[in-house]
Amino acid sequence: MTSNNRKVVLAYSGGLDTSCILKWLLERGHEVVAYIGNVGQDEDFGEARRKALAIGASKVLVQDLRREFVTDFIFPAIQANAIYESRYLLGTSLARPCIARGLVQAACQEGCGWISHGATGKGNDQVRFELTVYALAPDLQILAPWRDPEFLARFKGRTDLMEYAREKDIPITATLAKPYSMDDNLLHISYESGILEDPRIAPTEDIFRWTRSLTTCEPEPEQIEIHFREGVPTRLVNLTREQSWEDPLDLFLALNEMGSRHGIGRIDIVENRFIGIKSRGVYETPGGTILREAHLDIEGIAMDREVLRLRDMLSPKYAELIYNGFWFSPEMDFLHAAMLKSQEAIDGVVAMTLFRGRAMVTGRESPSSLYDRDLVSMDIEGGFNPLDSEGFIRINAIRLKAHHAIMAHRRTRPRPLA
Amino acid sequence: MTSNNRKVVLAYSGGLDTSCILKWLLERGHEVVAYIGNVGQDEDFGEARRKALAIGASKVLVQDLRREFVTDFIFPAIQANAIYESRYLLGTSLARPCIARGLVQAACQEGCGWISHGATGKGNDQVRFELTVYALAPDLQILAPWRDPEFLARFKGRTDLMEYAREKDIPITATLAKPYSMDDNLLHISYESGILEDPRIAPTEDIFRWTRSLTTCEPEPEQIEIHFREGVPTRLVNLTREQSWEDPLDLFLALNEMGSRHGIGRIDIVENRFIGIKSRGVYETPGGTILREAHLDIEGIAMDREVLRLRDMLSPKYAELIYNGFWFSPEMDFLHAAMLKSQEAIDGVVAMTLFRGRAMVTGRESPSSLYDRDLVSMDIEGGFNPLDSEGFIRINAIRLKAHHAIMAHRRTRPRPLA
Amino acid sequence: MTSNNRKVVLAYSGGLDTSCILKWLLERGHEVVAYIGNVGQDEDFGEARRKALAIGASKVLVQDLRREFVTDFIFPAIQANAIYESRYLLGTSLARPCIARGLVQAACQEGCGWISHGATGKGNDQVRFELTVYALAPDLQILAPWRDPEFLARFKGRTDLMEYAREKDIPITATLAKPYSMDDNLLHISYESGILEDPRIAPTEDIFRWTRSLTTCEPEPEQIEIHFREGVPTRLVNLTREQSWEDPLDLFLALNEMGSRHGIGRIDIVENRFIGIKSRGVYETPGGTILREAHLDIEGIAMDREVLRLRDMLSPKYAELIYNGFWFSPEMDFLHAAMLKSQEAIDGVVAMTLFRGRAMVTGRESPSSLYDRDLVSMDIEGGFNPLDSEGFIRINAIRLKAHHAIMAHRRTRPRPLA
Amino acid sequence: MTSNNRKVVLAYSGGLDTSCILKWLLERGHEVVAYIGNVGQDEDFGEARRKALAIGASKVLVQDLRREFVTDFIFPAIQANAIYESRYLLGTSLARPCIARGLVQAACQEGCGWISHGATGKGNDQVRFELTVYALAPDLQILAPWRDPEFLARFKGRTDLMEYAREKDIPITATLAKPYSMDDNLLHISYESGILEDPRIAPTEDIFRWTRSLTTCEPEPEQIEIHFREGVPTRLVNLTREQSWEDPLDLFLALNEMGSRHGIGRIDIVENRFIGIKSRGVYETPGGTILREAHLDIEGIAMDREVLRLRDMLSPKYAELIYNGFWFSPEMDFLHAAMLKSQEAIDGVVAMTLFRGRAMVTGRESPSSLYDRDLVSMDIEGGFNPLDSEGFIRINAIRLKAHHAIMAHRRTRPRPLA
Repeated sequence: MTSNNRKVVLAYSGGLDTSCILKWLLERGHEVVAYIGNVGQDEDFGEARRKALAIGASKVLVQDLRREFVTDFIFPAIQANAIYESRYLLGTSLARPCIARGLVQAACQEGCGWISHGATGKGNDQVRFELTVYALAPDLQILAPWRDPEFLARFKGRTDLMEYAREKDIPITATLAKPYSMDDNLLHISYESGILEDPRIAPTEDIFRWTRSLTTCEPEPEQIEIHFREGVPTRLVNLTREQSWEDPLDLFLALNEMGSRHGIGRIDIVENRFIGIKSRGVYETPGGTILREAHLDIEGIAMDREVLRLRDMLSPKYAELIYNGFWFSPEMDFLHAAMLKSQEAIDGVVAMTLFRGRAMVTGRESPSSLYDRDLVSMDIEGGFNPLDSEGFIRINAIRLKAHHAIMAHRRTRPRPLA
Repeated sequence: MTSNNRKVVLAYSGGLDTSCILKWLLERGHEVVAYIGNVGQDEDFGEARRKALAIGASKVLVQDLRREFVTDFIFPAIQANAIYESRYLLGTSLARPCIARGLVQAACQEGCGWISHGATGKGNDQVRFELTVYALAPDLQILAPWRDPEFLARFKGRTDLMEYAREKDIPITATLAKPYSMDDNLLHISYESGILEDPRIAPTEDIFRWTRSLTTCEPEPEQIEIHFREGVPTRLVNLTREQSWEDPLDLFLALNEMGSRHGIGRIDIVENRFIGIKSRGVYETPGGTILREAHLDIEGIAMDREVLRLRDMLSPKYAELIYNGFWFSPEMDFLHAAMLKSQEAIDGVVAMTLFRGRAMVTGRESPSSLYDRDLVSMDIEGGFNPLDSEGFIRINAIRLKAHHAIMAHRRTRPRPLA
Repeated sequence: MTSNNRKVVLAYSGGLDTSCILKWLLERGHEVVAYIGNVGQDEDFGEARRKALAIGASKVLVQDLRREFVTDFIFPAIQANAIYESRYLLGTSLARPCIARGLVQAACQEGCGWISHGATGKGNDQVRFELTVYALAPDLQILAPWRDPEFLARFKGRTDLMEYAREKDIPITATLAKPYSMDDNLLHISYESGILEDPRIAPTEDIFRWTRSLTTCEPEPEQIEIHFREGVPTRLVNLTREQSWEDPLDLFLALNEMGSRHGIGRIDIVENRFIGIKSRGVYETPGGTILREAHLDIEGIAMDREVLRLRDMLSPKYAELIYNGFWFSPEMDFLHAAMLKSQEAIDGVVAMTLFRGRAMVTGRESPSSLYDRDLVSMDIEGGFNPLDSEGFIRINAIRLKAHHAIMAHRRTRPRPLA
Repeated sequence: MTSNNRKVVLAYSGGLDTSCILKWLLERGHEVVAYIGNVGQDEDFGEARRKALAIGASKVLVQDLRREFVTDFIFPAIQANAIYESRYLLGTSLARPCIARGLVQAACQEGCGWISHGATGKGNDQVRFELTVYALAPDLQILAPWRDPEFLARFKGRTDLMEYAREKDIPITATLAKPYSMDDNLLHISYESGILEDPRIAPTEDIFRWTRSLTTCEPEPEQIEIHFREGVPTRLVNLTREQSWEDPLDLFLALNEMGSRHGIGRIDIVENRFIGIKSRGVYETPGGTILREAHLDIEGIAMDREVLRLRDMLSPKYAELIYNGFWFSPEMDFLHAAMLKSQEAIDGVVAMTLFRGRAMVTGRESPSSLYDRDLVSMDIEGGFNPLDSEGFIRINAIRLKAHHAIMAHRRTRPRPLA
């Protein structure tokens, strides 16, 4: 269980918590490599690097994970129509395995025997980080200070951390503490706890940092087109502004900008954590919300009905696995394979209007569509005979008639077998 | 198969199609009772009554089905979160079994041996009408002119109907034919075919008759509260205008008005008909859209996570059965029983802001909530120990580690059995 | 977390483990009430009672749970066709919540603040016992010695327990230790671990204590009939021996005897524990196996096809919940409600031949059956027209034709939107 | 809709029905190619060929489909654990698309515009044949005499066919008509209708033509081994008789022989036809039954638990699609892809005893197994800590405690929102 290798790679954010953890790990005799995964969060990475080195990290790795976050995590989730509990687009849940994979790679590369992170003991993120580590590199040890009895005994809250930082000369950013916690990346910003803990209290407008409100958003609609190939967005066109994007990262960043200026993608929900408790979350997911609407629509025209039914049976499970931290798991591999198959013919273009909080689909076209010119002929020569419907309905009614008769006669007692 | 009883009850709308059908049935030697089920459509029922009598109906029945439509069909669908193919709220699908049940009752009461309707042979409505009839009164005969070879031979389109009407002195309303077809009731208006048949072409603003556009909707938000008991809305409060409703029908009509003035509930989709073809539909569902959002939210706080998962497995099937016309069926009875059980603790209040196309939840409270004052104590004294998470994660990781090891060793050949 | 009340109720079996645990709890300063739940295991309850008192229990409760085990646990599982991983009939899994409920009732009645049991830390039973306790009486404390570091440090295996027993004058039964572990009740006997741990090694014939082998079983078949009302067996008739039973417990005991003399119900499987590891189990379930076959068959004739499909979607989840210990949970309450609804019309009689390992269905009759005399008329007058099949098939083929056309034309590139 | 090409390919069996149909088609002016697909049925193909030519077929094609039936249909169904309504192994259902594919290929090769078959209008086989034709070659016309009003008017039953045969000099085999209908192929023999139509009457022993009865079967058990690679049987060893097989067809034929001499694979059920009616079927499936048991078992040891859960959600749908005739469909392609993924690591050997009606698994080994020597180390160094179970259980209990508290407090009225 124990390893002689005391070298730790720490998922470092530059904030108070992980700065204190870094110092605490050093004091416990670990050598610490600070790892910063850039998944699009609003952060001064140079500043964070300097801070980690100042505290005593033996090395700092800043890795730009944004492109792989888009292509390896966000786009597959869009293909699968992943949505947790009918409403949440899984912004944090998708970023965690992406960062954790980076951490594992860093640990291997730097020869670390341990991985550490600053996630709390009541949340989902500890699970997501650690299941990824266990799945990809079961030999690595995990050190979760917020579950360490010694650490917990010393640090009861923010005040203890502040005091420790002062004591140990850890540079503290002068920013005022927000009265809630926040997590941001390319896909979303989440807000929770603090003043949001009371699910009756509405989030005030000043909380939202990304999307404009429905009052202050752009006064004019914009027309866009999203092109898909096999369920993946391959081209975004802003018809109103005459711009277009094809690179996955650029395309997604552009969608975010559009969504943000039109106030698209805010939700306020109570959700179920893997850990068995309910929590209230407020999210803004501008680009992801637009992309989901477009993808649902292109599937509407290009996907066979029964494939849609089967895929829809699997989507909630797919979302649940992401939420619970099982991105790297045999069951997820299974679902990925199924989802990929379902996207084979999901090609085409969706036209949308972005305006005042809504991403409204207004038209679509697909080479796989039943509306395709090459297929119209089917309707004409012998494709559909209204008389067929009669037989279809009558056959479907047989069970219903039998059921009706049974219900009417059910009082009869069973007769003895012959 | 045949019945001596030639008396038919006809689902009559007052429009051109069913007026011609009425006459045609009379000419074929049937006695016709015209049945008009009021599910909230925008129609002059007195005028329709006079018209039917003028054409030759032996009797006209106008039945107000609005309250039972709300309580027996719309509210159960809301409880089940019924949504077809992730987007459609089933406005027409829910109204059909309600009307068809009225038709069957009318047939029994008037001693009719036949039921007739004006639904076409390529659509969903013929199925919904007829499956209801077969389920509730299998002895009744069904006469569907739009699938009758003789009728089809005579009436190839609107022109033939117009000519027939003129010829037979059927009063024709002077309204201009719309370049699309429309169906409206308390829950929604649908628009399809005609100019909407090309899924690439956006619906123009003048099509929408109910909800205001995002440009012309109310400039100020309204705050509302919806109270639920066992998943059913029991009270609606408009905090901004200081009004409230408790009667199910009044409550739903008020929601519609609010939704309509804030431009809530428009969608444009391509959907899969039961009959195997895809069709494009444009819908507006103001009150239903608000109610769905509220219900999802009260469930978020009051429903157990695993009950939610199981219920969510059944919801798509529930919606599919409604869409396909199986409201009255043994499988629907089964699902109703399950859904009802799931709603046992779904009590509480949801606060929302209605504004510019969105029904945004901003807070909620429930006596069944984990946030309930009586439960807070659990968090304090020993309810949650962060160390428990460690064991939880490690146990969840066992499979993942084993899978990792298997994948690494899978090249080994099977050894012979001992 | 701690409670001043040091009184413990211990799930006591009379064996070496729980005898040592009893003594160990006394040494730790607990007062101990020994609880023995009789679910049909082969045990001398009077002897166990004397032993517990001799060791120092302040009280011994022996409770006959057999009838409620049959009516409240086994019959509902039969109604739901519960089978774990396609093969295991859940004998131990069903008994645990039954015993644990008894334990909780005993704890309340005797004023105990703690519950203790002898289940190991790698198995399913600890979960089943404890989840039941947490669900029914969250205020009770749980003491699981096989997860207690102090206990584990002292007792590394059977030898330590034997030595402790000798040292503390705990009477040890002179029976030879079996080279595997065993659990028995009314529903089954399970064998696992020890020599069975190697999944390649076949269980030897002498392991099986209940059912006869296919070589030594009864040389003549027996004909039986099982009557069901709403999916519950209400009457068992042995036509060959001219006997019958109606009392649930008597009926089930009689089925066990029949199954045992005909060698019915042995399986050897590798299954997935909740705890994430695979384990090999060998089971004999004579009566349960017969009952499952009969119930499947009566459903075949009396259950609507689509209700069957929906119920079959839920059955694996129902079995999984039982296996994992969630008998008392909101999700199980939900499933029970659904299952109960599905059994409404499951009435009738199934005829079977028991012979050489097989319970073979040979006929069935049901007042809810489509074969019922009252329904035959449907087939005659207009029930089925072969021509209807044509329309039915053609409508079902529409999607397939469209898919064929799409696949043929899919290389076409999407055209720009109009 | 109509085609000038009057050339028909007829699925010909050599029996009375299809012989009369052949003649009738000729009389209606069609040129007829008789197609006989050999899927292992017990038939004199040379005799059938001579008969078809004698009646007037312009050509007779006899095609050996046995190997592709095994590899393309039976083995995939085994991989998916396909079983219809918990009991039926789909013998006929799997053969139909195999034969129909052959028919379509013959039609294309021989330039036929029509396909004809002798399946009745109330059964499943018409659907299976025709959906395959519509899916693979939508341009072909289908001619189903048993749904043709003219044919039905002329042939009311067997007597009319006999008379027609005599009249038209169609050679009639002197075999006595069986008092039930039968369908046989490599995978099974089915018996239905006639004396079996009364579901209360047990099939008499003389009905079964393949498997020996439990009284007359082999008196000594046989030990076998089945090897799997990716879920497909690759090697069968008869340890008792020291024989082995690797060729898929030989392997399956050998399994059939073994199953047959040990009386394995008989069932008697009431099942739900696609067409909405229930029917009673008696089946014998010797080799398929053995193979299913073996495959379930190898999965037990080699498949991840959660992959198993997901696959098990899809298996009933997979079986239903086969039963209903949708082998060639987009949804089946989707399921095949998923099933294939699930079989990736399903390698290993299963040991079984065949004896008196049962195929009893007695051991198994897999290179993907958790019991594999290479994995044992996991258990030793840090793999499992019993203390982890404590946290695991406590976290799982959080929901249950909350639910308990909610249920206790649910009477509280909701408080107004802040």
